[in-house]
Amino acid sequence: MARQPTLEFWYEFASTYSHLAAHRIEAAAEAAGVAVRWRPFLLGPLFASQGWTTSPFNLYPAKGRAMWRDVEREAAAAGLPPLTKPDPFPQNSLNAVRVAVYGQDQDWLVPFSKAVFAASFAQGKSIAEPGSVIAILDSLGLDGTQVLKASAAEANKTKLRVNVEEARSRGIFGAPTFLTDDGELFWGNDRMDQALAWASGDRPPGLR
Amino acid sequence: MARQPTLEFWYEFASTYSHLAAHRIEAAAEAAGVAVRWRPFLLGPLFASQGWTTSPFNLYPAKGRAMWRDVEREAAAAGLPPLTKPDPFPQNSLNAVRVAVYGQDQDWLVPFSKAVFAASFAQGKSIAEPGSVIAILDSLGLDGTQVLKASAAEANKTKLRVNVEEARSRGIFGAPTFLTDDGELFWGNDRMDQALAWASGDRPPGLR
Repeated sequence: MARQPTLEFWYEFASTYSHLAAHRIEAAAEAAGVAVRWRPFLLGPLFASQGWTTSPFNLYPAKGRAMWRDVEREAAAAGLPPLTKPDPFPQNSLNAVRVAVYGQDQDWLVPFSKAVFAASFAQGKSIAEPGSVIAILDSLGLDGTQVLKASAAEANKTKLRVNVEEARSRGIFGAPTFLTDDGELFWGNDRMDQALAWASGDRPPGLR
Repeated sequence: MARQPTLEFWYEFASTYSHLAAHRIEAAAEAAGVAVRWRPFLLGPLFASQGWTTSPFNLYPAKGRAMWRDVEREAAAAGLPPLTKPDPFPQNSLNAVRVAVYGQDQDWLVPFSKAVFAASFAQGKSIAEPGSVIAILDSLGLDGTQVLKASAAEANKTKLRVNVEEARSRGIFGAPTFLTDDGELFWGNDRMDQALAWASGDRPPGLR
């Protein structure tokens, strides 16, 4: 039997369009016959390299206003709960992403990640403080205090730094980003369908 | 009879995604029962206001690489000819946009605009020099030399400046942008279908 193709889903907890993508990627991937590898990472270090000290949606107010309205529309169209705008935006996602990286190969990675997005963008909760992340872990039946502590160990912090450098070296500059087995990069929730099609071998005419 | 809804299509000749949108907006709008008002403008002055001296696709190389590949894929998927990359990119679109603004209410605006996009992004031609713009006008049966000269008159240059300020004041920060009769803004070729749906009264649940 042929190996099932895999699509890497690189996401950042502070990213609005990652929230939209996380909601629908499982069903879309199943329909396309593609396995998904969830890859949490941090955008901050990549933004810092290009001189940005905050989200481009804050740096460029017209772009930011259009984004918030767009995400509101897209969430409604996707049947998601009304969007809550994190305050402050972007949320500091370091604690949550460390936990996600720590859980990279655990069966709780996906439910944890979806719960973080829901807390931040649907329930209007902070995800920045350790207590917020612990509460999400606890709600999944894990020992939140223990997991958070383990995620702050030096080895896991290094793992996150390596992930960020991997993202950079593979051409990632924003989130969400989808990467196929053959290295094709698709940026944005808008490109999920194209990425899944590419992963499953369905490519635009003349391209490979 | 109810008035047909109108969607404004704001486009810039140097913009790759405007090229993709210009190719398909007529058929998509007809299918949606929406009239399109083509609104040529310049992105340069808006970019300059936020400190950019060139396209963000040049300022941020990873973003630029992803864009060129994405446009290649999207053009192939849309049945467009293979994309040619203008050299230099972005092309100086001032002459072409002045002509388009001069032709705002003429029946040649749309064929002229599509011919400029095709020249730049499918035929690998420069659109920057006066001669390039004249040749496109001539190919449409117009007196290119006369039209280009008329487009450089002070009144028309002012009209273009006013257009750019109108774009800015209505929240535009990139191209293509779609604006509905009730002022809803949709940014990007990706949002054409949503913009047409909104214009025709079909809105996501709970939004208006």
